[in-house]
Amino acid sequence: MQSLVVDAEWDPRSDYDVTDTERDSKKAMNASQVWRNPELRVTEQDRPVPADDEVLVRVRYAGVCGSDTSMIATNDDGYVHYSAYLRLPNVTGHEFAGEVVETGDDARLFEEGDLVTAEVTDYCARCHMCRQGFHGHCRHFEQIGFTLPGAFAEYVAVPEKILWDVSPLREAYDDEEDLLKAAATIEPATISYYGLFGRAEGVKPGDYHVYHGVGPIGLTGMNVSRAAGAGKVIAFEPSSERREIARELGFEHLYNPIERDPIEVVNEATNGEGADVHVETSGAVTQTYPVIQETLAERANVVHISNAGADPEMALRKLQSNSAQVYGSEGHTGQQVFPRVIRLMAAGRLDNLPIVTTTFDLSNADKAIHRAAERVDGKVLIEV
Amino acid sequence: MQSLVVDAEWDPRSDYDVTDTERDSKKAMNASQVWRNPELRVTEQDRPVPADDEVLVRVRYAGVCGSDTSMIATNDDGYVHYSAYLRLPNVTGHEFAGEVVETGDDARLFEEGDLVTAEVTDYCARCHMCRQGFHGHCRHFEQIGFTLPGAFAEYVAVPEKILWDVSPLREAYDDEEDLLKAAATIEPATISYYGLFGRAEGVKPGDYHVYHGVGPIGLTGMNVSRAAGAGKVIAFEPSSERREIARELGFEHLYNPIERDPIEVVNEATNGEGADVHVETSGAVTQTYPVIQETLAERANVVHISNAGADPEMALRKLQSNSAQVYGSEGHTGQQVFPRVIRLMAAGRLDNLPIVTTTFDLSNADKAIHRAAERVDGKVLIEV
Amino acid sequence: MQSLVVDAEWDPRSDYDVTDTERDSKKAMNASQVWRNPELRVTEQDRPVPADDEVLVRVRYAGVCGSDTSMIATNDDGYVHYSAYLRLPNVTGHEFAGEVVETGDDARLFEEGDLVTAEVTDYCARCHMCRQGFHGHCRHFEQIGFTLPGAFAEYVAVPEKILWDVSPLREAYDDEEDLLKAAATIEPATISYYGLFGRAEGVKPGDYHVYHGVGPIGLTGMNVSRAAGAGKVIAFEPSSERREIARELGFEHLYNPIERDPIEVVNEATNGEGADVHVETSGAVTQTYPVIQETLAERANVVHISNAGADPEMALRKLQSNSAQVYGSEGHTGQQVFPRVIRLMAAGRLDNLPIVTTTFDLSNADKAIHRAAERVDGKVLIEV
Amino acid sequence: MQSLVVDAEWDPRSDYDVTDTERDSKKAMNASQVWRNPELRVTEQDRPVPADDEVLVRVRYAGVCGSDTSMIATNDDGYVHYSAYLRLPNVTGHEFAGEVVETGDDARLFEEGDLVTAEVTDYCARCHMCRQGFHGHCRHFEQIGFTLPGAFAEYVAVPEKILWDVSPLREAYDDEEDLLKAAATIEPATISYYGLFGRAEGVKPGDYHVYHGVGPIGLTGMNVSRAAGAGKVIAFEPSSERREIARELGFEHLYNPIERDPIEVVNEATNGEGADVHVETSGAVTQTYPVIQETLAERANVVHISNAGADPEMALRKLQSNSAQVYGSEGHTGQQVFPRVIRLMAAGRLDNLPIVTTTFDLSNADKAIHRAAERVDGKVLIEV
Repeated sequence: MQSLVVDAEWDPRSDYDVTDTERDSKKAMNASQVWRNPELRVTEQDRPVPADDEVLVRVRYAGVCGSDTSMIATNDDGYVHYSAYLRLPNVTGHEFAGEVVETGDDARLFEEGDLVTAEVTDYCARCHMCRQGFHGHCRHFEQIGFTLPGAFAEYVAVPEKILWDVSPLREAYDDEEDLLKAAATIEPATISYYGLFGRAEGVKPGDYHVYHGVGPIGLTGMNVSRAAGAGKVIAFEPSSERREIARELGFEHLYNPIERDPIEVVNEATNGEGADVHVETSGAVTQTYPVIQETLAERANVVHISNAGADPEMALRKLQSNSAQVYGSEGHTGQQVFPRVIRLMAAGRLDNLPIVTTTFDLSNADKAIHRAAERVDGKVLIEV
Repeated sequence: MQSLVVDAEWDPRSDYDVTDTERDSKKAMNASQVWRNPELRVTEQDRPVPADDEVLVRVRYAGVCGSDTSMIATNDDGYVHYSAYLRLPNVTGHEFAGEVVETGDDARLFEEGDLVTAEVTDYCARCHMCRQGFHGHCRHFEQIGFTLPGAFAEYVAVPEKILWDVSPLREAYDDEEDLLKAAATIEPATISYYGLFGRAEGVKPGDYHVYHGVGPIGLTGMNVSRAAGAGKVIAFEPSSERREIARELGFEHLYNPIERDPIEVVNEATNGEGADVHVETSGAVTQTYPVIQETLAERANVVHISNAGADPEMALRKLQSNSAQVYGSEGHTGQQVFPRVIRLMAAGRLDNLPIVTTTFDLSNADKAIHRAAERVDGKVLIEV
Repeated sequence: MQSLVVDAEWDPRSDYDVTDTERDSKKAMNASQVWRNPELRVTEQDRPVPADDEVLVRVRYAGVCGSDTSMIATNDDGYVHYSAYLRLPNVTGHEFAGEVVETGDDARLFEEGDLVTAEVTDYCARCHMCRQGFHGHCRHFEQIGFTLPGAFAEYVAVPEKILWDVSPLREAYDDEEDLLKAAATIEPATISYYGLFGRAEGVKPGDYHVYHGVGPIGLTGMNVSRAAGAGKVIAFEPSSERREIARELGFEHLYNPIERDPIEVVNEATNGEGADVHVETSGAVTQTYPVIQETLAERANVVHISNAGADPEMALRKLQSNSAQVYGSEGHTGQQVFPRVIRLMAAGRLDNLPIVTTTFDLSNADKAIHRAAERVDGKVLIEV
Repeated sequence: MQSLVVDAEWDPRSDYDVTDTERDSKKAMNASQVWRNPELRVTEQDRPVPADDEVLVRVRYAGVCGSDTSMIATNDDGYVHYSAYLRLPNVTGHEFAGEVVETGDDARLFEEGDLVTAEVTDYCARCHMCRQGFHGHCRHFEQIGFTLPGAFAEYVAVPEKILWDVSPLREAYDDEEDLLKAAATIEPATISYYGLFGRAEGVKPGDYHVYHGVGPIGLTGMNVSRAAGAGKVIAFEPSSERREIARELGFEHLYNPIERDPIEVVNEATNGEGADVHVETSGAVTQTYPVIQETLAERANVVHISNAGADPEMALRKLQSNSAQVYGSEGHTGQQVFPRVIRLMAAGRLDNLPIVTTTFDLSNADKAIHRAAERVDGKVLIEV
């Protein structure tokens, strides 16, 4: 089958302690310390064979994530930007929708023809974290498109316990292509949903939300915030293209933080009360946290989602005087996150289709990755 | 000034222990045990003079609540239905919007010309409950339209600490009359908001909500649920008029519980998963709780809001096997409830205007009460 | 190996719809409708062989639970009292501690010599509930001592994902026999811990707790409440033997609800404020709920744990006027419950040894069950 | 009456914008920018006259807080360290217990002879924050001992709404002197209680707690953590005197962070799981946050209580990968904090008497302040 494969050279930096497990499995814990001179190519691979508890999915649409672009972006010395777990060579891609075409011998929850999407993280269901229901903290996790073969391919094998039925989206989308495109955006939308409703406590309808960063995660997040009853959604983003996409989604409070003082903007928009919810999706934390700290409403929730490029100085006095809190949030696993996002989409309250700005064929999947790296799109999809 | 006054005979039932305080203040703790043969009349009263910490409001619109009708509804022996605190004679009415026309000497938060609405309950700000922030449990509370002169009148004096600025509604309503009508429905909408987000914990966007009863509280509640991101809103109501009002608000899952088996309906609409949120707004608890107990999703929240006519049998086994919980909810005070409902209205997400089905002049306020007692309207307003 | 086996006749009541699954598996969903004329015998069984993901445990102590006695208690027509899932014949017993003596091929978390206890419910880790972390709601659960062979035996095979290391108890118990006895009481203690801290929200240190029922669940629960900082623990229990055990544990507020009016007692002990936490562990709900409803502090949490013999009338008005809530609670799975109870024991804050009032050898295990049925003990243990 | 008065020169720094209100009221918003060359003297003042809603308290014991010492500590240029609201000259002192000797005309909750303590912050009960129950965020607050006359005096006038009855402590202390000493430590204990149970969510019995800093707030906090069921309480403090006080309180895990690597210590003590609760009470945040960030258990709560001397770099990646959160916490108002701490003391679970290491007469109150500044005591009390 056709697929997009990332490969690179295993060349651990001299000051990085490679564990035996990493060396044996070629699964680096911090890719940016190990993988060098990455390559990207569309190539033929064997179709995966589903294990007993897996299901084989014919991929139909797969979205490009920032992590996909950071696997091939490099520093001056050729090491990749991506800094978490990565086994290479690998078929990448983890935001997808498709159709079940085969089921493992012990799979019992899905059948051929089911339309599905998947969580990213497979968990052991047995370790100290999993047994407490914290699947996202599994001690032995694997990730589709990172340490397991991914979805930029005609077929992907997925453990059924991380697969979700998307057929309820038929209530919102008459056209199956639209349904599948929308379904391929569920995963990024769950990132914000989990941050806002799985991690933060006390986000209430009518709260004022501010997004720092309007990339794919920011855009789907703003959609989630609106669906969940945000009183206002205010967003800062330097890219005019991305602000324009947000505007077409119907958002009004969109600003270039270079041209307009964000503190002033938030104070005006909130009538001096400050924002109740701050979502950091930009990664430019040394710029955004000083703004966040000056615009905290009493009891404000700060939800940190982005891959921060640095450790910002935290004005603890501001957190104290406003009774505010900062939540680190990552991933989306467990706690009803996927089914609730699916329901919001099925109800027509959360429509991500306008966020999809560009689509490539699988044969041009490498171009899709490069395009996404330009950071002007809403979401770049690969049609398989 | 013109006003609607309720009066009745002080005639405590023989088996009701009247306290000295009740006798001296003519404030019955349980009106239905004390007040008999009520009368309703539009009459002239002196315009109230605001105390130091009060504000005088020129009333513009005031809604009729079920409690207003129950003050004049009687049993066979002439005792009123209303069963909480009531001092008579009194100007009734507590759901209102108007304009500030005078401020007390020590009032500092409002000025003439401000458009406002109010909470119902004035609290002492000092007792064991108030000092903990539980104003709704004040040991010395008074209530506008119940134990204090109310809003079915040209003017009402209101302690400024329970008054709220509604000028943000200008963002949603160009016309000031519309703004004020909408503002007069804030108070009933806060009842459900408080139940769902001030009392219950863990109501999440995408949850399935079921309303048992589609009167004014149910209708404004359904609007709140939708604004807050309910995955579906399902409602049961025998009155076809009220179901029709809900339909015009855009709700689809509306059923007559006499014609359609509610358990079956919920199971179908939720794909067998059950409802996550159950809001009891009908009072017919012996009919509704058997349904609720058979349609609980895992982790379901049951929010009891209505004035229950009886004590239903509670199937504790069902609560246990579904990890469900039942919250008693009453009122709306504190905890950001009013400002959040105001913001949802200002954002255009919560529009109660279509719920207003009939309007009377103040001179016909008595007819408005009788009309509301027919239980076919959404909300009956009195225009002042 | 020696073991205690329960058997009975498969004789479904005429009005009970037996499913095919029940018939094929001999696993009744409601034992009380199917199993008749139970027998109890100590007998020889083959030693279980651990499956790949299981561990074989040499049992050392196993406690008798109310469910164990209710499997052999019968109505006039011979049907057993136990009303949940039960497959017979079966080795019963699910509250135990022991030593790992063998590990399955794929077991990797435990090794020979580890001292352990176990959760009761094995879950599929894959269904709609499990994938959300709600293991206790697994659609395909099995239970040790109910539908799987249990711990009233020399050996029991346990899936490693429900097994917990109890070696931290060495910090509190010098003697290994004491450690293992204490470890055998972890499971009942988790029932209350889960109800108080996994289900109810807002139980805070300093709260006043009331226990209705001082059997093994009540006693371990009172110990949990005290360890967790209850301001007072008040308990009602007709059995003078059980009140005496509680007194020896150091509790003071112990009353016979037949002799002393519980409402008066709670009002006195709480200085009229009412109790913040009400734990129903008696099952006599028609007696206890009227008390609970008259002694609710504002914001009170009612945690229903017992197997209720009836559906009590619920005074919804009382829940409303006190902003109280009722939580159904069952089991103990997930959410850090076991490790937190183990830590409390290790810290010496939760000592259940004084609750153990009687111990039998495994060869007299049948007598242990009959003894526990007399309801005068704290905890009856079987030493293996 | 005798009293301890702090005075200083009003000399705003040239770059500090003094508001009209500050100038008129001599109430600096940031004392460290305005007040210079402080003086401390025991002197005669008129006995305060309670306002209508106030109560006059004969002070018996009053504790010295870090804020009291920081009002007279100065930089090289003579400006005081204290950086929040301060009106001078003023009688300072805010941690106290005493006896009611007179009540204002409208005071109705207390009577002569009542033993009491008080919250620090008087609130308006009317502003946007107060009406929502967030008294600690009052827009018009005043503080006893900071902007209102305080408790280092024979008498202090206190609004009755922030006064609490401490007579329940009779259950724990036979001796009235002991009772009053203990009552004078309620206020500092509420600081941690509020941080752990009023701000952080999800602190559960059995959690491992780490205190960074073992001054008066750390010591009372450790006592609160233990009373609330902490699985372990681990603490770091350079002062051997203060570690010794903690040891006498019965704590075991006490370390000098200069001699022992705190990361290693926490990892060992928690068996590599990390700490669930981190309480920052030292102010040395550039030293402590690097430790905190490396010792986070999954779902860890970081409660920031101290007056931070800097803004530490926050390793957001660590918060994300551990699903951890940071809460700013300040003060103690509302939300049942005082009554719950009082109950824990009454129950004998929270005994702060051993923390009181030195006592001075009121005539030597200035010496008490200087002694406290040496930072070797648990709590310095002034006996009046």
